[in-house]
Amino acid sequence: MLDEGVTARRLESYVQGAWRKGAGEGKPLAHAATGRVHARISSEGLDFAGALEWGRDVGGPALRRHTVHERALMLKAIGQKLMEMKDAFHAESLATGATPRDAWPDIEGGIGTMLTFASRARRELPNARVLTEGPVEPLSRDGSFAGQHILTPLHGVAIHINAFNFPVWGMLEKIAPALIGGMPCLVKPASQTAYLTELVVRRMLEMDILPDGALQLVCGGAGDLLDHVTGQDVVTFTGSAATGRKLKTNPAIVAHSTRFTMEADSLNAAILGPDAGPGTPEFDLFVREVHREMTSKAGQKCTAIRRVIVPAAHEKAVIEALSERLAATPVGLPDDAQVRMGALVSTGERDGVRDQIARIAREAEIVSGDPRRVDVVSGDAESGAFLNPVLLRCADPMNAAAPHEIEAFGPVATVMAYDDVAQAVALAEKGKGSLVSSVFTDAPEVAAEIVIGVAAFHGRVMIGNRASAKSSTGHGSPLAPLVHGGPGRAGGGEEMGGMRGVKHFMQRTAVQGTPRLLSAVTGEWVDGAPSRTDGHPFRKSLAELQIGDQIVTDAREVTREDVEHFAHFTGDTFYAHMDSAAAKANPFFEDRVAHGYLIASFAAGLFVDPEPGPVLANYGVDNLRFLTPVYFGDTLRVRLTCKQINPRENAVYGEVRWDCRVTNGKDEVVAQYDVLTMVAKTWPLEAA
Amino acid sequence: MLDEGVTARRLESYVQGAWRKGAGEGKPLAHAATGRVHARISSEGLDFAGALEWGRDVGGPALRRHTVHERALMLKAIGQKLMEMKDAFHAESLATGATPRDAWPDIEGGIGTMLTFASRARRELPNARVLTEGPVEPLSRDGSFAGQHILTPLHGVAIHINAFNFPVWGMLEKIAPALIGGMPCLVKPASQTAYLTELVVRRMLEMDILPDGALQLVCGGAGDLLDHVTGQDVVTFTGSAATGRKLKTNPAIVAHSTRFTMEADSLNAAILGPDAGPGTPEFDLFVREVHREMTSKAGQKCTAIRRVIVPAAHEKAVIEALSERLAATPVGLPDDAQVRMGALVSTGERDGVRDQIARIAREAEIVSGDPRRVDVVSGDAESGAFLNPVLLRCADPMNAAAPHEIEAFGPVATVMAYDDVAQAVALAEKGKGSLVSSVFTDAPEVAAEIVIGVAAFHGRVMIGNRASAKSSTGHGSPLAPLVHGGPGRAGGGEEMGGMRGVKHFMQRTAVQGTPRLLSAVTGEWVDGAPSRTDGHPFRKSLAELQIGDQIVTDAREVTREDVEHFAHFTGDTFYAHMDSAAAKANPFFEDRVAHGYLIASFAAGLFVDPEPGPVLANYGVDNLRFLTPVYFGDTLRVRLTCKQINPRENAVYGEVRWDCRVTNGKDEVVAQYDVLTMVAKTWPLEAA
Repeated sequence: MLDEGVTARRLESYVQGAWRKGAGEGKPLAHAATGRVHARISSEGLDFAGALEWGRDVGGPALRRHTVHERALMLKAIGQKLMEMKDAFHAESLATGATPRDAWPDIEGGIGTMLTFASRARRELPNARVLTEGPVEPLSRDGSFAGQHILTPLHGVAIHINAFNFPVWGMLEKIAPALIGGMPCLVKPASQTAYLTELVVRRMLEMDILPDGALQLVCGGAGDLLDHVTGQDVVTFTGSAATGRKLKTNPAIVAHSTRFTMEADSLNAAILGPDAGPGTPEFDLFVREVHREMTSKAGQKCTAIRRVIVPAAHEKAVIEALSERLAATPVGLPDDAQVRMGALVSTGERDGVRDQIARIAREAEIVSGDPRRVDVVSGDAESGAFLNPVLLRCADPMNAAAPHEIEAFGPVATVMAYDDVAQAVALAEKGKGSLVSSVFTDAPEVAAEIVIGVAAFHGRVMIGNRASAKSSTGHGSPLAPLVHGGPGRAGGGEEMGGMRGVKHFMQRTAVQGTPRLLSAVTGEWVDGAPSRTDGHPFRKSLAELQIGDQIVTDAREVTREDVEHFAHFTGDTFYAHMDSAAAKANPFFEDRVAHGYLIASFAAGLFVDPEPGPVLANYGVDNLRFLTPVYFGDTLRVRLTCKQINPRENAVYGEVRWDCRVTNGKDEVVAQYDVLTMVAKTWPLEAA
Repeated sequence: MLDEGVTARRLESYVQGAWRKGAGEGKPLAHAATGRVHARISSEGLDFAGALEWGRDVGGPALRRHTVHERALMLKAIGQKLMEMKDAFHAESLATGATPRDAWPDIEGGIGTMLTFASRARRELPNARVLTEGPVEPLSRDGSFAGQHILTPLHGVAIHINAFNFPVWGMLEKIAPALIGGMPCLVKPASQTAYLTELVVRRMLEMDILPDGALQLVCGGAGDLLDHVTGQDVVTFTGSAATGRKLKTNPAIVAHSTRFTMEADSLNAAILGPDAGPGTPEFDLFVREVHREMTSKAGQKCTAIRRVIVPAAHEKAVIEALSERLAATPVGLPDDAQVRMGALVSTGERDGVRDQIARIAREAEIVSGDPRRVDVVSGDAESGAFLNPVLLRCADPMNAAAPHEIEAFGPVATVMAYDDVAQAVALAEKGKGSLVSSVFTDAPEVAAEIVIGVAAFHGRVMIGNRASAKSSTGHGSPLAPLVHGGPGRAGGGEEMGGMRGVKHFMQRTAVQGTPRLLSAVTGEWVDGAPSRTDGHPFRKSLAELQIGDQIVTDAREVTREDVEHFAHFTGDTFYAHMDSAAAKANPFFEDRVAHGYLIASFAAGLFVDPEPGPVLANYGVDNLRFLTPVYFGDTLRVRLTCKQINPRENAVYGEVRWDCRVTNGKDEVVAQYDVLTMVAKTWPLEAA
C-alpha cells in the first residue's frame, strides 16, 4: 500500500465544457522522490466520442471564425499570464522528481515556446483565415487559368498524447501550433505526471481567453478515444515506440488515414571529432554535454545522449573524464539545493531502467556506476525512485546490437570507439533514426563530413565547438524555430520548425480557376483578376483599399543622359551602362543598358503619390527580377496593383503588398516585383 | 481457358542489375477489349530483400554523388527520348482498353510530368547535393550560434506500388521527384497493365543514362518485399483503400516508421453553383465535364467524378442533359475511330463495378444506362470488358450512405440535389476526404464559400467557369506544379506539388552550430562565418570565387542635396523626403529621410566594379528590407559577401547570390538584401 499524503489531489478532466471526475477512487500517483501518494487519477466513464464531437462542433468553428493573428494573440495573452504563475508550477513539478533546474525547460521553456509561436505567427503569417502558400502557378498561356495552394484548418480535433517527462512543454509545444492553425486540441498527458499538466490547463481555462471547445484535457487512460477519430483529426504521440506502434495501427486511424505524428525515444548520439582530443576546448565541452544530458531530468529525455561515439585514441580519456564527473553527481531530493540529479519518475520506471541496463550489459561492460546500489545525499533511497548514473563501454560497437537498440530511459549511456570518421557515421546510423545527435569538432571538414553523413537519419544535428561554447542551446533542447522529430526509430514525425509546425494542423489544397475566382477564394489579387482605377490607390486607407486597386502610370523615356547621369550620381559606372562595345560583348546585352536600380527608381517616381496620405512608408521589396534589358530610348510604364492587405491587430496601420510590373514600349515586362508598404487603417491617422 | 494470342509476351523484372524472369509459366493477362492473353507475368522466386539492398547499396550512393541539376538533366534526356518513342507506347496501351485519347494523359502526360520536374528542379533548386530550406535562424544574441534546415536524400529505396489505370504516368510522376531528390526507385506496377510499364522501363534502361540500381522494376506480386523495408525507405501506394490499409499496417512499415504515402480512390464531387442554371455557360461546362470524367478511361480514374451535386431546382435539367450525352457515347474497341469509350481493364473489374452499382442502387435509382446489358459499336460485348455508362440519382443524399462511400470504379456517377450552398458543402464533405472536387460557378461569393468550405477535405479543388472554358486543364488532371492527394478516404497522401514532391524523398534536418561550421555543412555563407577580402570579388570567375569572398566599401554621405536631386530626377517627391514637418508627423520618421531606392542605388555605386569582368549582370534582388531610416548627413557603407554559388550545367555562367548589408555611421543596419548576379565560370568568358 502506498502511503497516502494529506494533500493527495483528485485529478479531473475537462471535456464537453466542464471539469469532470472519472469514476472510482482513481489510481494513486506517487511523488517520485518520496513515494507518497501525490494525486489520484481516473478517466473512467468519460464520453470520449462526445469530447471529440464537442471539439469538432463547438471548438473548431469558434477557432475558425478568428484570423491567425487573433488566435496567436490569445496564446500570447495566455503565455504571459502563465509566466506570472510559474512558481506554482515549479512547486508542483517537484513531485515529478525533477530539480528546479530540470524543470526550467519544461515550465519556462514550454511557456516560452508558446510565446515564440504567438509572435512568429504574427510576423510570418498573414492576418487571415485562409493562408496562401507559394506562388500563383500559371496553368494556361493566355493567363485565364491558374493555380494557387491554400492552407485551411482541418475540421477535426488535434489529439495530443504526451509523455510523462515534459508535462508542460510537451503540451504547450503541441497546442500552440495547432491552435494558431485553427484546430481545437484534446490533451491526454501521461498519468504519472498529469497533476502538473492538469494544474496548468486549469489556470489556462480560468483565464477564459480561448473559446469553449478549443482545449480539452483527459486525465487518465485514453479508453476508446482513438476509436472515434476521423480523417479530419490529427493524433500526435510522444512516448515509447511500442505504444506508438499500437496507437498507429488503431483500426480507426488506419481506416480514416488520420494524420499520426510520433516522437519516439531514440538512441541519440554525441560524436567527438578526431580533432577534439584531450586538452582541446571541444573535448571539455563534449564531456560536459554528455554528463549534462545523462543527468538532467535523470536522463529521462527523448533527446538525451545514449551513445557516446569517440575516436579510439581518446576513448580512455573520455571514459575517465566522464566517470569522474558522473561519480561526483549528488543525487537526492529535487528541492535540496546541493542535489544535482533528482529522482526518476517512479520506482517502476527505475526497475525498468535497471532491466534495460542489464540487457545492454550483455554486449557492453559497466565502466562507471552500479545500478544495484543507490547513493543519495537526501531522501530515502528505497521509497524514492533514485538511481545513480551508469556508464557502459561497448568494445565492438560495429557488431553489437543492444547498445544501438535498447534505450535505458534514465541516467545511462554507452561509450563506443571509432577508427575513422566514416565509421563514426556508420555507428551513428546504427541507431536507425534519431531525434538528434551532436558533433563536437572545430574542424570544418569534420563537421561537413559527419553532419552530411548522418543527416538522413536525424531530425536535428548540433555542432558544438569553442566558438559557441557559451551561446549554444545544447544537444538536448528542441527549439521552436527548428524541427523536432526524426526518422525510423525516432518515430518518423516532425513537429515545430517554426511555421512548418502550424501547417501540420492545416490541409494544403491546390485551387485552380480563372484569376477572378481564384482571387475571391484567396483574398489576394492574382494577375488577370479585375482591377479598379478609381483614383490613386495611395490615397486610400485600409478602410477603403481593396485588392485589385490599381494605378497605371504615364510612360517615361529612359535616355542616354539619364543613364550617364545616374551612373555618375550613384557611382555605378558598370561597363554595361557606359561602354557600348563592352556591353555588346556581354552575353545578355545587345548594347548599353539602363541600371536595374534606375528602373526601380524611375518606377517609384512614376507611381508615388507625393502628398501626405495613408501610405506611410515603403519598407521593402520582394522578388525583384529584371526580365528584359532597357536600352536608351525605351519608355517605361508601371502598373501597380494592390495584391495583399494585412491589417495588424493592435496597430493603427497594416502591411500592404503591391504587385509592381514595369513594361517597355513593346509591352515586354522589364521588371517585376512586390513593393511592401505600411498603410494607415484610417486617414488621417488615428492617435496610436 | 483464356485464348492465348500469338503475341503473348512473358514480362520480366529488372532487379539487382539484370532482367529476370519469375518462376513458373506466369499468370495470363488479358487484352481488355478482346479478352485474348496479351502477356504473362510472374515475380516468383525473385530476391526482394536483395533488390532493396541493391538499390540502397548501389543505386543510392551513385545518385547521391550527383547534384540535383545533374540528376534532373538525366531525367530530361530520358524524357526527351521517351517522347520520341510514344507511338510504340500508344500501340501497347490499346491492350489496356484505353482509347488513344484516353492514353494521352498517361503517356504524353506522364513523360511531360517528368520533363516538367526536370526543368523546374533546375530553375527552382540549387545545383547542389545538400539543399537548404528557409532562412538561417539566429539562436544567440551574439551571433555565434545559429540554425539552418537542410534537406538530404534518404538512404533507402523509394518503392512505388502503382495502380493499373496509369501504367506510364503513375510510374513517371513518382520516380521523377524521387530520382531528382536522390533516391533510387523500385517500381511495382499493378499486374493488369504491367506490360506497358515494363516496355517503358525497358526503353529507359536501354538508354543507359541512370546509374545502375537507380531504377528497378518488379512485374508480378510484391511477395515479401515490404517485410524488408527500413526507416530510410519510402513506400508510395496508389490503389484501393482496402489494399492500402493492409500495406500500411505491414509490421516492418510500422516498426520502422517507414514513410508511407497513399492515394486511394475517393468519391470526388462536381458541384454546380446555384447561379449556374440551364442556359448559362457554366451549366454546359458542368455537363460536359461530368460526362467526360465519367467516360474517359471508362471512368477508371482515381480523380473521376462520382458525385454530381446540383441545386434542387436544376436537378432535372442536369439529369436530362447528362443522360442524353451518356446514351450517345459509342462504346467499343479502343482503336476504333468512332469509339468514344473503350473497355474496362478486365471482365473481373467489370463484374466488380456491376456489384458496386447494385450496392449504390439500394439508396439511389438508376436514371440512365443499364448495367446488365452492353451495347458496343465494335468488339465482342462478352469477351471484352465493356460497360455502358450508368447514372444514378439519390433522392435523400443528406441521409444516404452508399453514394458517398461506395466507389464504382467505372463509368458511374450519382446525382444528388442540395437546397443551399451550405448543404452543397455538407454533401461534398460526406465523401470524408477526396482527391479533387470541382465547382462550376461564375459568382465570386459562391466560389469562395464552396471552395473554402470544402478545402479541408480536399487536396485539389477546381473552379470551372466561362472565362477558363478553353484553358482549363479539367477536373481530372493532376498537374506537376500542384499537389495531388487528399485527406481521409483519399488516403491522406500528398505527391507532386512542384518541388514539394522532391522533398518527400529527402530528410529535413535542423543543423545548429557556429556560423563557420554551419557554412561548411551547407556550402552557403552564413553571417558570422569567415570572410576573405583578397581583392574585389567581382574580379573572380566561378573558378576562383568562394563563399565568404567579401568587399567592405568606403563610406558615402547622404546629403539633403542628394535626396532632393534624386527626388527631382526620378520624380519620387514623396513628402517624407521633401517636407520636414510632414515627415515628422509620420509614425516611422523623425525627419526627412532618404529614398529606399536611393540607398540601394548608392549601395550599388559603392560596391560595383566598373570594368568588364566575370560578373555579367545583376538580374534581381531578393528580400530587400529598409530597416533604419537614413537622414541627411548619415553615411552609408556596404558589406557585400558571396553567399551562394550555383553553377549551371550546360552554360558558361552560373548564379551567384550576394549578401548585401548597408549600415550607417552608427553601424545600424539600414538595408539588408540579396543581390542576384550572373557570373562567368571562367574569365575571359569561354565561347558558349
